[in-house]
Amino acid sequence: MELYNYFRSSASWRVRIALALKGLDYDYRPIHLVKKEQNSPEYLETSGTGLVPLLVLDDGTKLHQSMAIIEYLDETFPQPPLLPRDALGRARVRALAQDIACEIHPLNNTRVLGWLKGELGLSEEARNAWIHRWIEGGLEVVDRQLAAQPSTFCHGETPGLADCALVPQIFNAQRFNCRLDHVPHVMRVHAACMSHEAFSSTQPSVCPDAE
Amino acid sequence: MELYNYFRSSASWRVRIALALKGLDYDYRPIHLVKKEQNSPEYLETSGTGLVPLLVLDDGTKLHQSMAIIEYLDETFPQPPLLPRDALGRARVRALAQDIACEIHPLNNTRVLGWLKGELGLSEEARNAWIHRWIEGGLEVVDRQLAAQPSTFCHGETPGLADCALVPQIFNAQRFNCRLDHVPHVMRVHAACMSHEAFSSTQPSVCPDAE
Repeated sequence: MELYNYFRSSASWRVRIALALKGLDYDYRPIHLVKKEQNSPEYLETSGTGLVPLLVLDDGTKLHQSMAIIEYLDETFPQPPLLPRDALGRARVRALAQDIACEIHPLNNTRVLGWLKGELGLSEEARNAWIHRWIEGGLEVVDRQLAAQPSTFCHGETPGLADCALVPQIFNAQRFNCRLDHVPHVMRVHAACMSHEAFSSTQPSVCPDAE
Repeated sequence: MELYNYFRSSASWRVRIALALKGLDYDYRPIHLVKKEQNSPEYLETSGTGLVPLLVLDDGTKLHQSMAIIEYLDETFPQPPLLPRDALGRARVRALAQDIACEIHPLNNTRVLGWLKGELGLSEEARNAWIHRWIEGGLEVVDRQLAAQPSTFCHGETPGLADCALVPQIFNAQRFNCRLDHVPHVMRVHAACMSHEAFSSTQPSVCPDAE
């Protein structure tokens, strides 16, 4: 398999974690988002969407959207499972992952921050207020759920889909100097994940394209 | 079941469509997002997240995040299926839904547009440029995929998860006067959906809280 991704893209990191949890090998194909390589005619031709991450299967099939890719991996390589067996557990894990992937991350990715700075000409202060609003507020929603049903990882004693989403989001929060002392359950789970090799061995700083 | 939702919330409408496709009855509980009822202590207590939609099952279990809710409904009430049987088909449908739910919708929901107007003091022109950028660009990504594998609905000849996401997004696009002539495959699927009762009977204008 080939994974087109960027070391600092948190959606990319989600997939790197899932591949590591499954013990799957892949070729790392860097796409530099800040240099806008994702918008090149070549990558648009390769990807069909211009989005990263993109997983290319051995037969050439192309999959995009990190959560869809992780669910595909979980269905195709079932061990270890990244989603619980029961429908209610799966709904909880998917909702936690989507609380991050649909509510927090889309507001703070490279192209949105680029628009705030470029087209809207926002000051660094106004951009930071924006970032902090969505990350700090969004993580509160996650924390409340982890507090209501505590476990080592987001759901139970083994890492899964929600953890794949959580850890890269905390990396971003720290990079943007967000407040995190109001989300102790999130930070407890984050620490448990970062002591697991699938998370630490795939983090941005150890990627081939790390700067 | 009870569905806490708002007539104009597109994430809410996704769930209304899925419930209608499954032929499931529910009590409609309106939460007025513009009046910020979702932030009331009562609703925060009820929901645990302050988010809509919220589906409360007959035993009191609470589910949030529209795509997680729809997957739960599909697993629990399998007929008619809203996701294909094959893993690659499911990955395609989930990716299409997430192209909308993770890339387009989060940038144009009520609270984000409220921040652009209130905290950032953006003019109507600047807000419209923002809305058009993300909706029109995001729908192009969807259109390219529908063009590559054309069918009556997003995937195949029956409506599913991706259609639940697509139709409410087009409603928003039309409300904000977005250009749509560049996405003919999207509009073809939208027309097919709107001639299906599960979509037309759940649209915002016929909701109990419609204004």
